[in-house]
Amino acid sequence: MVKNPPVINRLAILGIGLIGSSVSRAARQYGAAARVVAYDTDGDRLARALALGAIDDAAASLEDAVTDADMVVMCAPVGAMGAIARQAAPAMRAGAILSDVGSTKTSVVADVLPVLHQGVHFIPAHPVAGTEKSGPENGFATLFDGRWCILTPPEGADTAAVDLCAAFWRALGSNVDVMTPEHHDTVLAITSHLPHLISYTIVGTVMDLEEHHHWEVFKYAAGGFRDFSRLAGSDPVMWRDVFLNNRDAVLEMLGRFTEDLQALQRAIRWGDAEKLEALFTRTRDARRQIIEARQA
Amino acid sequence: MVKNPPVINRLAILGIGLIGSSVSRAARQYGAAARVVAYDTDGDRLARALALGAIDDAAASLEDAVTDADMVVMCAPVGAMGAIARQAAPAMRAGAILSDVGSTKTSVVADVLPVLHQGVHFIPAHPVAGTEKSGPENGFATLFDGRWCILTPPEGADTAAVDLCAAFWRALGSNVDVMTPEHHDTVLAITSHLPHLISYTIVGTVMDLEEHHHWEVFKYAAGGFRDFSRLAGSDPVMWRDVFLNNRDAVLEMLGRFTEDLQALQRAIRWGDAEKLEALFTRTRDARRQIIEARQA
Ligand SMILES: NC(=O)c1ccc[n+]([C@@H]2O[C@H](COP(=O)([O-])OP(=O)(O)OC[C@H]3O[C@@H](n4cnc5c(N)ncnc54)[C@H](OP(=O)(O)O)[C@@H]3O)[C@@H](O)[C@H]2O)c1
Ligand SMILES: NC(=O)c1ccc[n+]([C@@H]2O[C@H](COP(=O)([O-])OP(=O)(O)OC[C@H]3O[C@@H](n4cnc5c(N)ncnc54)[C@H](OP(=O)(O)O)[C@@H]3O)[C@@H](O)[C@H]2O)c1
Repeated sequence: MVKNPPVINRLAILGIGLIGSSVSRAARQYGAAARVVAYDTDGDRLARALALGAIDDAAASLEDAVTDADMVVMCAPVGAMGAIARQAAPAMRAGAILSDVGSTKTSVVADVLPVLHQGVHFIPAHPVAGTEKSGPENGFATLFDGRWCILTPPEGADTAAVDLCAAFWRALGSNVDVMTPEHHDTVLAITSHLPHLISYTIVGTVMDLEEHHHWEVFKYAAGGFRDFSRLAGSDPVMWRDVFLNNRDAVLEMLGRFTEDLQALQRAIRWGDAEKLEALFTRTRDARRQIIEARQA
Repeated sequence: MVKNPPVINRLAILGIGLIGSSVSRAARQYGAAARVVAYDTDGDRLARALALGAIDDAAASLEDAVTDADMVVMCAPVGAMGAIARQAAPAMRAGAILSDVGSTKTSVVADVLPVLHQGVHFIPAHPVAGTEKSGPENGFATLFDGRWCILTPPEGADTAAVDLCAAFWRALGSNVDVMTPEHHDTVLAITSHLPHLISYTIVGTVMDLEEHHHWEVFKYAAGGFRDFSRLAGSDPVMWRDVFLNNRDAVLEMLGRFTEDLQALQRAIRWGDAEKLEALFTRTRDARRQIIEARQA
């Protein structure tokens, strides 16, 4: 493989959890950044990330991390992005790129745009890849390989900055899409947020059963429940923030889902064999298409 | 490894799909049966199973398959078990075991018990293991390894027959549990049937979006949706039969789930951060316990 020059010279990661440490590992492993410095409010975590070899340098303060950075990526829960940007932007050099990996985009754009400083390019991003784990121990360099990364640049964003951000994510192995924050939030509400909401709910329903039933449920989880429990093991703060910050789109999709569930409930109650078989046949096709999209 | 003598001399499989072919492959590979003969109403499928080396013999008729069998395992959709048993039982030798792998047990017991012949021991079973695929091409010998198989022997069942059936499933690598059909159906309603119902629903909700949205959903499926789409790719006839035959338990669990979903919907609508974080923290524990139960 021919080694390309790094896309970014100095990269700063703010929040070195699952995603932050994966971005850092991938950037270093694939040579997308020449040097990666990180900062985290949790000093222990930052020290662990350094000891694990996930980053080149641990900064003593957020300002130290961003001062000389060519690109700063905020990797904290979406509710924290506004406050982090408010602190980071004034310390960044003119012409540098501020980005993030948040799972909601309308709220992040609304929180960050007003606190930007002249000359800093804000290019929001969301890598659609992840696991149910959190923390820097669980990050890995290949997380974004073959996955999609969605950029939602504000109107009038600097095209060179958008291109650089896209080149960075491509260097990590991702495919890149560009869309509006609103469109992002609608699509992600159904592909990611609603599945998590439902998983949290059904696992909660099980936890409400009498204690002696729990173990039985866990024993027989291979019957389907385990697929749901994986999502429901995801980070509570991250997901609290997602639902608080994409409320309208999530409630809209939840409304459609609930209607459809009621129709199916009725079909079961009345023993409507044809209706059940027809729906179950139709959904098979979706699985096939996801496999074709190589996202299975 | 010391080779044990086969648990069963002659095993007959009725319905050589995903589960039937996996039982056959496992029984032959682990030496749990000396010889496996199969019958399927679909002659092509039966010929394919033979060509694939999944079975020793393909029987020309159901009666041929079961006449000399020491154990007969019905591996068709649960709605077909009664009719299959009605045809098989009179042709079986006294003292032989009739079993099944159906995903519901109360209905199978109710359908099969009345058509049994004197001297045939009916020991219903449900291996809690599977995939979203169907057909003999997709069966494999290790499917039951480390998974649970639940036996629901009718009251007064011959204990030697129960023990033999348990020994057979242990020889395929399974752990064995014994319980009543009613208890089985309640537990499986939440661990397997409700997760499938929800998966079918949400994938259906997506299929109802405008056409141009579908592909986007499939592209970004790695955000969580793919976990649901897997279950919704499962066999339509098999699952139609499950819901028709475990209606009450499924509706009961669906009722609880719907209530919980409404509570969460309210928490999102009112921005109740604490409630969301509390639930999401509680469900993490379930994931940990499933990993401990080695069913993740
Ligand atoms: N997990 C996924 O599957 C996934 C996928 C795509 C995108 N995302 C997005 O990626 C972001 C991070 O998620 P994650 O899964 O990596 O979570 P994580 O493993 O919990 O990491 C989040 C990190 O951010 C730190 N942090 C919180 N507030 C901060 C602040 N004000 N300044 C600096 N650091 C702060 C946290 O430290 P403390 O614990 O000390 O607060 C933690 O180290 C979220 O916006 C999420 O929506 C996640
Ligand atoms: N898939 C799972 O994950 C799973 C797990 C545990 C238990 N189970 C149970 O296992 C059983 C089989 O499921 P599967 O996944 O193996 O489905 P499958 O791959 O579709 O196989 C079912 C087979 O039964 C045949 N069949 C249908 N009616 C029949 C009849 N009257 N006589 C003989 N054969 C008949 C079918 O042939 P035709 O196509 O010609 O009808 C087909 O070959 C079901 O009771 C299911 O509840 C499934």
